[in-house]
Amino acid sequence: MRLERFERIMGGVCAPNDFLASGVSCGIKDGEKLDLALVYSETPSVAAGVFTTNNVKAAPVLLTRERVPGSAVRTVVINSGCANALTGKKGMEDAAEMVRTVEDLLGLVEGQALVCSTGHISEYLPMENVVKGIERGVSELSPGGNSDAAKAIMTTDTYPKELAVEIEIGGEMVRLGAMAKGSGMIHPGMATLISIITTDMPLVLDEAQDLLKKAVEWSFNRISVDGAQSTNDTVLMLANGAALTDDYEVSGEEKELFFEALCWLTGNLAMALVKDGEGAAKHIRIVVNGAVDDRSAVEAARAIANSNLVKSAFHGEIPGWGRIAAAAGSADIEFDQDNLDIYIGENKVVSGGEVSSYDSGVIARMLARDEIEITVDLGSGGGSAYFLTTDLSEKYIKINASEKS
Amino acid sequence: MRLERFERIMGGVCAPNDFLASGVSCGIKDGEKLDLALVYSETPSVAAGVFTTNNVKAAPVLLTRERVPGSAVRTVVINSGCANALTGKKGMEDAAEMVRTVEDLLGLVEGQALVCSTGHISEYLPMENVVKGIERGVSELSPGGNSDAAKAIMTTDTYPKELAVEIEIGGEMVRLGAMAKGSGMIHPGMATLISIITTDMPLVLDEAQDLLKKAVEWSFNRISVDGAQSTNDTVLMLANGAALTDDYEVSGEEKELFFEALCWLTGNLAMALVKDGEGAAKHIRIVVNGAVDDRSAVEAARAIANSNLVKSAFHGEIPGWGRIAAAAGSADIEFDQDNLDIYIGENKVVSGGEVSSYDSGVIARMLARDEIEITVDLGSGGGSAYFLTTDLSEKYIKINASEKS
Repeated sequence: MRLERFERIMGGVCAPNDFLASGVSCGIKDGEKLDLALVYSETPSVAAGVFTTNNVKAAPVLLTRERVPGSAVRTVVINSGCANALTGKKGMEDAAEMVRTVEDLLGLVEGQALVCSTGHISEYLPMENVVKGIERGVSELSPGGNSDAAKAIMTTDTYPKELAVEIEIGGEMVRLGAMAKGSGMIHPGMATLISIITTDMPLVLDEAQDLLKKAVEWSFNRISVDGAQSTNDTVLMLANGAALTDDYEVSGEEKELFFEALCWLTGNLAMALVKDGEGAAKHIRIVVNGAVDDRSAVEAARAIANSNLVKSAFHGEIPGWGRIAAAAGSADIEFDQDNLDIYIGENKVVSGGEVSSYDSGVIARMLARDEIEITVDLGSGGGSAYFLTTDLSEKYIKINASEKS
Repeated sequence: MRLERFERIMGGVCAPNDFLASGVSCGIKDGEKLDLALVYSETPSVAAGVFTTNNVKAAPVLLTRERVPGSAVRTVVINSGCANALTGKKGMEDAAEMVRTVEDLLGLVEGQALVCSTGHISEYLPMENVVKGIERGVSELSPGGNSDAAKAIMTTDTYPKELAVEIEIGGEMVRLGAMAKGSGMIHPGMATLISIITTDMPLVLDEAQDLLKKAVEWSFNRISVDGAQSTNDTVLMLANGAALTDDYEVSGEEKELFFEALCWLTGNLAMALVKDGEGAAKHIRIVVNGAVDDRSAVEAARAIANSNLVKSAFHGEIPGWGRIAAAAGSADIEFDQDNLDIYIGENKVVSGGEVSSYDSGVIARMLARDEIEITVDLGSGGGSAYFLTTDLSEKYIKINASEKS
């Protein structure tokens, strides 16, 4: 983890200077569950964003991506329980009312608030409740509101996910904080994922967008729970620069350190999303080496990660080399099956496209673990990639055969 | 079904003139289960074939596709229980021994026999048993052997699938017969599918290959049980021309009638494979209209058919319009979500990208059915396609968490 260069700290999205947050219950979800979160910067922030590539986009995604990248963003309002997707013109009006309400209450100008929604698709937001929730959320903004905010964005997640780290730049502590939620529809292209990242690092617009895009590609875009891609996926990063004075010039090495910390943050949140994947009992890391190029390696890894047959085999703790080979082979890439090697942990189980002899007791013990690493060497070049996935359990079906979409 | 132009008859692969078949038990599977089939034409046949596009191909696929298309093929030997995949050099030698044994016993020249295998991957064939099985299979070839042959190719199928039809051409009855097996790994690109089609229609080489390819595209390539693609998928068609005299000139209209019968055959077998899909309780027909072009329609239909979230929703009989929209949107195609309509049967549930008001009692009754049709209109052009799929049940996981690959 190379944590010697940065330290994990408390505080989630409120860890960086001048960031406040809140999480309240306003009745979108049943009961008293928290369902509306606010993240607020006391000074204007550079905002970067990565959004779902799904052709069907929820209203808040359509609104927010018009405002991102942006250089004077102050706040993000996020509701859970209702995705405000497949809601047509009314949905767009509701999303606009959410940002307008936040902007009015906080004395901001139009364009300084962003909005995210997550939850059931094809339902309208109960706007009266939402407006009241925003009023309460604004009044409760505080430097300790990060935990409530992280809870308020959860849907089928079983626990909140937040993280923060600090690095030293120019003798000052620069901080990055984040929260994220999964946990069905987790898939590259990003799924029902919402993640808000805050930092007091000074970043310019293109730089922030570029760094976020790369960090997402290597983290949230390398996880899959069920191969589905959502209408609402959004990762936002707000950078207010509050840690350093305006005249400090950040060196190339310091920028690299920041990027490393950002990747640690997104990588660890991505792993947490997989671990909390719907119905998941096992977590599988798939490494593909020896592909013609990195893109081919990603395709092969994704095909394995999304194979119901592979995931069922891991669930049943049965040897599934044939399924892994067939899944890799189904990717639209080039490789020579005569060079195909497959390893479970460090144990070679397929060699040169042919099943190897191996100690079945050792393999059985490895398959019984909660965390399993498989390596597929395509033997056709220098491309490599990794992917995180889960097993496929009866529980996944149970959740998704009863949970409304 | 337009059955007025052709009649369904008995006889499976033995229905066309001069075709014999057999199915025997030789101990590849446990117990006395039939596990080796032979289909034999008493005269040389034109042979066409469509094979898995998986990068990882089983030994019998590598051998048989060297011999297809071919103009003097006489027989196909098929074993179940072992896929002879991931078996390297020994696997290739075993496949070669299978065809050599058949050719020797039937007095054929090298190249006149084809071979298919289906079953567990990464196991070697018990060749002593297989050779004895071939000997018995050859001695038991008969015009009534079609049912045993159809049984002998089954793996996790719960019943054998065979069909035959006849059409009238030039005053003679021309027949087409077929058998097929599924039932896990059923997916476009064809999966663990093996299907053998026989006909006494006279066909030339390119014509046979072209017709088979088209018929497969519209049938076996439009079904999905679990999104997986196998190492062994093979569809073969043997045409011995025995129904007509050599000098009869088949008209364009008659060729069209033949193609129609071929599509009826493959379409109905494809439907039977879906109905017998592993753990499937419901059968879902997905129609996509209004795509930019047919290819885009196929992509959208496939994305919906392969979505675990959509399939789980149908299993639980819960409304899943959001999941259907999100799955369609995840396909790498162009469409405008503001034009998106979704129907369950004839009931519109999404209109112009927005959830419609509908009678939830009517919808609940439709979702309770075993066969469900959903139509997705992308409102962006004239392209259309269909796809058949199943629900995703706990039983699928149970089967695939215990069945070896």
